Amino acid sequence: SKDLEEILGAQKRHHQKVKDENPAGVVTGLAWTPVGGEVLFIETMSMPGNGATLITGQLGEVMQESAKIALSLLKSRLPIDFLPFKERDIHIHVPAGATPKDGPSAGITLFSALASLAMNKPIDSHIAMTGELTLRGDVEPIGGLKEKLFGAMRAGITKVLIPETNKADLKEVSEEVLDALEIIPVRTVEDVLRETLGITLPPIEMKMDPSIRFMI
Amino acid sequence: SKDLEEILGAQKRHHQKVKDENPAGVVTGLAWTPVGGEVLFIETMSMPGNGATLITGQLGEVMQESAKIALSLLKSRLPIDFLPFKERDIHIHVPAGATPKDGPSAGITLFSALASLAMNKPIDSHIAMTGELTLRGDVEPIGGLKEKLFGAMRAGITKVLIPETNKADLKEVSEEVLDALEIIPVRTVEDVLRETLGITLPPIEMKMDPSIRFMI
Amino acid sequence: SKDLEEILGAQKRHHQKVKDENPAGVVTGLAWTPVGGEVLFIETMSMPGNGATLITGQLGEVMQESAKIALSLLKSRLPIDFLPFKERDIHIHVPAGATPKDGPSAGITLFSALASLAMNKPIDSHIAMTGELTLRGDVEPIGGLKEKLFGAMRAGITKVLIPETNKADLKEVSEEVLDALEIIPVRTVEDVLRETLGITLPPIEMKMDPSIRFMI
Amino acid sequence: SKDLEEILGAQKRHHQKVKDENPAGVVTGLAWTPVGGEVLFIETMSMPGNGATLITGQLGEVMQESAKIALSLLKSRLPIDFLPFKERDIHIHVPAGATPKDGPSAGITLFSALASLAMNKPIDSHIAMTGELTLRGDVEPIGGLKEKLFGAMRAGITKVLIPETNKADLKEVSEEVLDALEIIPVRTVEDVLRETLGITLPPIEMKMDPSIRFMI
Amino acid sequence: SKDLEEILGAQKRHHQKVKDENPAGVVTGLAWTPVGGEVLFIETMSMPGNGATLITGQLGEVMQESAKIALSLLKSRLPIDFLPFKERDIHIHVPAGATPKDGPSAGITLFSALASLAMNKPIDSHIAMTGELTLRGDVEPIGGLKEKLFGAMRAGITKVLIPETNKADLKEVSEEVLDALEIIPVRTVEDVLRETLGITLPPIEMKMDPSIRFMI
Amino acid sequence: SKDLEEILGAQKRHHQKVKDENPAGVVTGLAWTPVGGEVLFIETMSMPGNGATLITGQLGEVMQESAKIALSLLKSRLPIDFLPFKERDIHIHVPAGATPKDGPSAGITLFSALASLAMNKPIDSHIAMTGELTLRGDVEPIGGLKEKLFGAMRAGITKVLIPETNKADLKEVSEEVLDALEIIPVRTVEDVLRETLGITLPPIEMKMDPSIRFMI
Ligand SMILES: [Ca+2]
Ligand SMILES: [Ca+2]
Ligand SMILES: [Ca+2]
Ligand SMILES: [Ca+2]
Ligand SMILES: [Ca+2]
Ligand SMILES: [Ca+2]
Ligand SMILES: [Ca+2]
Ligand SMILES: [Ca+2]
Ligand SMILES: [Ca+2]
Ligand SMILES: [Ca+2]
Ligand SMILES: [Ca+2]
Ligand SMILES: [Ca+2]
Repeated sequence: SKDLEEILGAQKRHHQKVKDENPAGVVTGLAWTPVGGEVLFIETMSMPGNGATLITGQLGEVMQESAKIALSLLKSRLPIDFLPFKERDIHIHVPAGATPKDGPSAGITLFSALASLAMNKPIDSHIAMTGELTLRGDVEPIGGLKEKLFGAMRAGITKVLIPETNKADLKEVSEEVLDALEIIPVRTVEDVLRETLGITLPPIEMKMDPSIRFMI
Repeated sequence: SKDLEEILGAQKRHHQKVKDENPAGVVTGLAWTPVGGEVLFIETMSMPGNGATLITGQLGEVMQESAKIALSLLKSRLPIDFLPFKERDIHIHVPAGATPKDGPSAGITLFSALASLAMNKPIDSHIAMTGELTLRGDVEPIGGLKEKLFGAMRAGITKVLIPETNKADLKEVSEEVLDALEIIPVRTVEDVLRETLGITLPPIEMKMDPSIRFMI
Repeated sequence: SKDLEEILGAQKRHHQKVKDENPAGVVTGLAWTPVGGEVLFIETMSMPGNGATLITGQLGEVMQESAKIALSLLKSRLPIDFLPFKERDIHIHVPAGATPKDGPSAGITLFSALASLAMNKPIDSHIAMTGELTLRGDVEPIGGLKEKLFGAMRAGITKVLIPETNKADLKEVSEEVLDALEIIPVRTVEDVLRETLGITLPPIEMKMDPSIRFMI
Repeated sequence: SKDLEEILGAQKRHHQKVKDENPAGVVTGLAWTPVGGEVLFIETMSMPGNGATLITGQLGEVMQESAKIALSLLKSRLPIDFLPFKERDIHIHVPAGATPKDGPSAGITLFSALASLAMNKPIDSHIAMTGELTLRGDVEPIGGLKEKLFGAMRAGITKVLIPETNKADLKEVSEEVLDALEIIPVRTVEDVLRETLGITLPPIEMKMDPSIRFMI
Repeated sequence: SKDLEEILGAQKRHHQKVKDENPAGVVTGLAWTPVGGEVLFIETMSMPGNGATLITGQLGEVMQESAKIALSLLKSRLPIDFLPFKERDIHIHVPAGATPKDGPSAGITLFSALASLAMNKPIDSHIAMTGELTLRGDVEPIGGLKEKLFGAMRAGITKVLIPETNKADLKEVSEEVLDALEIIPVRTVEDVLRETLGITLPPIEMKMDPSIRFMI
Repeated sequence: SKDLEEILGAQKRHHQKVKDENPAGVVTGLAWTPVGGEVLFIETMSMPGNGATLITGQLGEVMQESAKIALSLLKSRLPIDFLPFKERDIHIHVPAGATPKDGPSAGITLFSALASLAMNKPIDSHIAMTGELTLRGDVEPIGGLKEKLFGAMRAGITKVLIPETNKADLKEVSEEVLDALEIIPVRTVEDVLRETLGITLPPIEMKMDPSIRFMI
């Protein structure tokens, strides 16, 4: 018999597989669910606008904050003259649209998706990642690593970025999973960009007009 | 005796029929309800304004997000010089006005209606569709396909677009319904536009001023 | 002894009568209440402003959406050069101010009031109407027709516009009421305007600058 | 012993008296309370700003709507060239600040206060009034007339404006009160302005630029 | 053992004393609390901005309205050419930051603080005050006078402004307190400014461009 | 077995240590938790924008107010010509992203982080601090000092700023902690800046255009 879930959206009948490729702005992430680890996709896109940010996909408060942290970090690091954010809107979506999602562990996935969008350069769809991102660009530990890695393997992922502070959790992960996956511990957003887009961020500095200085 | 439903609006006494034709901006969708599948109409329209989006019809949070995804996707794909969205407001309505509606499965119907509006080209009112839309333009599976197809047939629909990922559900659908309907599985928004408006979207690319490039 | 109703506003002691005439912008509607049908007045007005819309009268969510649909429909049909909406605010009010009201069936009354306001042409106060309005301009069925028509007769109404899809309900209406009232079934907003203001809307078309075209 | 009321504000120890005079923008109103009728003061004021409206005094939703109706009605009737509302903010306050107030019956008092403010002309503080105001400018019936008139007399009021539709309630009012007060039934906002400010509003007409006409 | 209060902020271990001096914009007020009267500080400050008002200190709805009344009254009385409010933001704060506060009785303290800020002239920190302020500038009665005066004496206050309408409450105040404090009854905001800043407000008049007049 | 905490974020398995260095804009704070004192990091950053402030990290109402107080105080003291706040957005974040935080005691830490950001000068990561900040720049007492100091020592902190009004609480602190830490009591924000950035704020004065003066 039919129930509410079928009104709101389709039940996933089998585990999601990664796609052959992701366009620029779309990155494969990892989610912990009560029935195991799963891949998910962070989708970002820009359109003509005035600097607004839209977030959809039934994201909870913490995950929406993660998206804002990722976007702020990107904006603060990009050279100012190459930043058309004020004439574009950014839309961030995470399918499936009817499934509530929350938590901070998509931080580096959100950042990678936005960086891929800004550079208009795709990231290999077989790379997945999980890690909380702080505003200074550090990658902080997450939960459910064992389940996430198993889900990544089952979905066809070949390389996973994890927080360096989660390395101790790898001892709980089975041989089969460790053999199937290349595990890359990352400490900072610089590590993430190097592994996903093959680029190096300039060192942090405020990009303000050099003629403007604070004096207190 | 009278009850609250009659205060708030008319009870549908018989199942809705499709109209002979839909104007540009209006597209026939399919809904699952506790008493079976039904057609519904996504109505869109533009008016002089400043880029605002109005959504009416007692749409729930997930369905409002679907509308935003559809609109963002359209804006990101349209050539920038032909986009008067900033001087027009968009209004999206789904009758009947007093009936609450929710869920992500009207995604491709919302997109089709907005594309029809933007091109000022009607879509055949005998085509119905159902499918969740992601921000990258993929069509994701929905629930209640059997009931929706039966409702489509009863309403006079002759052609239905469904997510390719729902093809396995067709084995639950009766011969009578399959004979009455032309079923078109679709994988992407490009498939949807080809089947509804007979057009082909250009490949995804950011429509920014070519003199602006990101360098990280 | 006094109770809360008397703090919040006056109790209607007898049934409301229509006024001898309504100014431009004010139209007589029909409401279903637990104690029978009643006339009500949709009052609209414009003032110097910047395009804002104010809605008062303790209208519920569905009725506020009806007001937005009516206003959008009017804006989309008016020739663009004759539209000072951006320099005027619109205020829509429905007395009595302390009585909560809801439902979609005032759709065509709201539209008529706004059209009367825009044209600065009054509508005969002895014409009442009831019908849900869709964004494409169709008139949809409403509930409580029998009670509304009885209330209209008692209030001094002589002509009532009803949705064509409600014609079957007329067989429940008494001879006395049918003799007293001229009943006009309407299918579209064009029918409504012809019966109330004696005018014909141009066919729907987007009023955008002809030099701007969408190409996909 | 002390209780919450004394934390939030002072308890009125005796009934409020009218003041010798009200400045322009301040008008004496009448309230029904569970312990009898009382006078209250509607205070309005303008200041440099950008057209915003501030409402304070713990007014409920219905009373805030009354304030908006009064302000809209005033704006729609004032000659457009003499309207500096866009460069001024309007503040409406009703003491005492900690006492919640609600209901539509201060409509004509709010209108009188705003008209007094706009003309910078005081209204006699010994005139009080009660009546709901509609957007077309009609004065509608209110409750608690007997108590309000008794409270007016006790406070030193000499003249009270009441809705003409409340005249039947005067038979419940004692001789003592009727002797002490001059009772003026009013039907419209024009009656109110004549009795309070000694002026006559021009007939309703939209004050738009004469070169702009609607054509449908 | 630790409890929630210590997470949220420090418990006051002893009664607050007044400081030797208050900078311009900071004024000493009086609060009633379940454990007696206390002094508090209204802190105001301006910064480069665009006319926004920030209010912090966990102020309740009524106290926030008091702040708006005080600010509106000041804006309406200041000569228009000397009002840089549109290029500055105003911040109003009341320590301690974790203690909820409410009620209208800080009205004249808020006004004094803002006037001190606008004139950049400090008010003697040994002057405290309590009184509700109306929008016309009248000082209305408050509760808890006995406790507030005792708390003022204990904190080192030497002069207290109270509403003239609270003079009858002084008979409940002990000889010791009355001997220690100079009590100044005030009727209007003019009285307050004279006692705190030694200045006289010009009579109320709207400060609009003299070439703009209302005609009705 | 897995629980909700692991969905929302990683459980801290061991106590946080300070990092070798903090970049400009990041300052080490101290938090009281039910299981003892801990260090936390206030992260601030600026990016191209229009003067908006973003706050993330699941901060409660009181802590968000603390952030606004800190930012207002900084804005009011900075020389006006050196203030690019209107062309930059400020983002304030406090990891871990899924842990709710509240209270006023991070006031001086928030101020130090913003001052460090504005001057683009790092603060030694081995300095921690706790203290409520008022809008006039005073440092007010906080709770949980004993636990916070113990947590600071354990995390590798060598110098801690505490409110002078908390000095009496030091007698509850163990010898071991007092030996490990240099404790600096501070009274004002000037003390804080001297100890963290080695600078002296100019005396408070409003930074308005000298040609603009208030006259009342
Ligand atoms: Ca939600
Ligand atoms: Ca491996
Ligand atoms: Ca709703
Ligand atoms: Ca078929
Ligand atoms: Ca309501
Ligand atoms: Ca008839
Ligand atoms: Ca309230
Ligand atoms: Ca009399
Ligand atoms: Ca609060
Ligand atoms: Ca004395
Ligand atoms: Ca929260
Ligand atoms: Ca030491």
